[in-house]
Amino acid sequence: MSEELTYKSSGVDIDQAQRALRSVIPAIQATQGDSVVGGVGGFGALFDPKLGDYQRPLLVSSIDGVGTKTKVAAMVGDYSHLGEDIVNHCVNDILCQGARPLFFLDYYGCSALSPLYFEQVVGGMARACGAVGCALVGGETAEMPGVYADDEIDVVGTIVGVVEADRKLPRQKAQAGDLVIGIGSSGLHTNGFSLARKALFDVGGLSVRDALNEGEETTIGDALLAPHKCYFNSVWPLLEMDAPIRSIAHLTGGGFFDNIPRVLSATVRVHIDKRSWETPRIFRLIQEAGGIPDPEMYRTFNMGIGMVLIVERFEAQKILAELHAAGEFAALIGEVVDGANDVLVL
Amino acid sequence: MSEELTYKSSGVDIDQAQRALRSVIPAIQATQGDSVVGGVGGFGALFDPKLGDYQRPLLVSSIDGVGTKTKVAAMVGDYSHLGEDIVNHCVNDILCQGARPLFFLDYYGCSALSPLYFEQVVGGMARACGAVGCALVGGETAEMPGVYADDEIDVVGTIVGVVEADRKLPRQKAQAGDLVIGIGSSGLHTNGFSLARKALFDVGGLSVRDALNEGEETTIGDALLAPHKCYFNSVWPLLEMDAPIRSIAHLTGGGFFDNIPRVLSATVRVHIDKRSWETPRIFRLIQEAGGIPDPEMYRTFNMGIGMVLIVERFEAQKILAELHAAGEFAALIGEVVDGANDVLVL
Repeated sequence: MSEELTYKSSGVDIDQAQRALRSVIPAIQATQGDSVVGGVGGFGALFDPKLGDYQRPLLVSSIDGVGTKTKVAAMVGDYSHLGEDIVNHCVNDILCQGARPLFFLDYYGCSALSPLYFEQVVGGMARACGAVGCALVGGETAEMPGVYADDEIDVVGTIVGVVEADRKLPRQKAQAGDLVIGIGSSGLHTNGFSLARKALFDVGGLSVRDALNEGEETTIGDALLAPHKCYFNSVWPLLEMDAPIRSIAHLTGGGFFDNIPRVLSATVRVHIDKRSWETPRIFRLIQEAGGIPDPEMYRTFNMGIGMVLIVERFEAQKILAELHAAGEFAALIGEVVDGANDVLVL
Repeated sequence: MSEELTYKSSGVDIDQAQRALRSVIPAIQATQGDSVVGGVGGFGALFDPKLGDYQRPLLVSSIDGVGTKTKVAAMVGDYSHLGEDIVNHCVNDILCQGARPLFFLDYYGCSALSPLYFEQVVGGMARACGAVGCALVGGETAEMPGVYADDEIDVVGTIVGVVEADRKLPRQKAQAGDLVIGIGSSGLHTNGFSLARKALFDVGGLSVRDALNEGEETTIGDALLAPHKCYFNSVWPLLEMDAPIRSIAHLTGGGFFDNIPRVLSATVRVHIDKRSWETPRIFRLIQEAGGIPDPEMYRTFNMGIGMVLIVERFEAQKILAELHAAGEFAALIGEVVDGANDVLVL
């Protein structure tokens, strides 16, 4: 052999990975308050949760990935939102249990490390963690040539938060008569990208560079890559002021039909009135391009509603007003009736 | 179109994923003692850490993947150890900080879900969690056609454990005169598979079905897939009995040269005497097949030593005896001398 075989020549460049990591360490450290003990580099990350004021703290955790949104990022050449996507996805998930975030860990898998994309992704994670007071405490970067297709990446994250046991959500399961508030999404968030890509690009023959609306500057790529919204800063104050929210559902994979029943008892149904908000253009375009039936759309996508609050009827207007004051699009989009743990979109 | 476009026809089969998950739920639930609140299915997993006896509990977390060991599993058609691999990897990592595991979350990414492989992997996670009293509280399964190469999977896990602040490791950084105990590994564990595959199969022309030793039944595939050893049940009792262990290093990616310095102060060096244990056959085979220089071997692989304890010299024999009594292969493999935060393998 002309060259000795090394880990690097087999496709794994530890030095490059460590250089890429060093470039984002200042952003990561900026998320780490005095709860983080010992800094970056240990085998495990040490975090002081400071739970002295809690009677019975419950740790609430969630792990998730950004799915094939990475493929749209590759088509556009812009990975700058994938970090926010995964952090916000996780923050919203544990908010459904009433938890505030403590710390986050990331996993970045790829065929070969692109330092530029890595910095975009992990830099975005640090920004999103900072925005909600969550410490980015650790991560793993894996170069796996042959497991990932060429130039592909996967972005995964785990969040751990805390909630006082007697304040966890759902506080009570929804009851007939309760109302359903929907809070606007920024687009697809991180779900349904396999179907969206197939409909828009394979069936519809469209491109990420095509205009979302004829004559306007925003492209289909821009609309698809809009970062997953974080609802923590608008919804957490409602929980702190003890607003009568019975339960919260984050509309992720499985859309309306799989996510809302997760917070319903066996004896109620949710009616969603789909005319109560305007479905954003990107969803209509996906549906038209792919000839996708309505039920499949509401089972796959959030259709413009990223988070659903089920609230006591007589307090609904007050909660809506708080959400509007916090800058959210929010509307009454349905109600709870007797039923069998299901959802009807009418 | 002859068929309507759905999420399923775009390559993501939610129903199949949910069926595969249902098959492993009993095994998962068996890991969940009364600390798990609310069971499977919420947006976040609720865990009561029961930290009332701790003065200042620190949460210790780690995220990792099994790397391209998945490709060897595919070559052999045996995914049954990958779940143990990732759990044990994570358990060992936080043990280096002196922590015991609380809970674990998994991520399973693939091009298309094979229910059989999924059950093998997640069933193995549940077994490994059960063996150390760790609750498997949540997970995410992602089908990402086009991101993962055909038939490829990635297996990622996050662990969260706890340690009393004044008992965290390293307790004191190693000092000149301390001794180094090595505990035997079961093989490559989860690191160095890209280099090993290149050396054995591409350069060496060997197959997973070839015998490890001529005339014997164990194959190269068997040796490569041996599950990552868990050191918790042999090392934790030493920590509980306050054995004078200064620090613990888990020999993962980066081998001896990157992992041992993580627990050394700036002013010491570790001498490793590589003749103090017998390097297992699989490592010698990789080295011969690939013509890999010695330093690269010790920088990539554990070479038969999965965990290193740095201990006070006068207690080393007692600690060795405890490890032997617990069934471990363990030996004095080096010592700490004055130096510059580095490792020499002699």
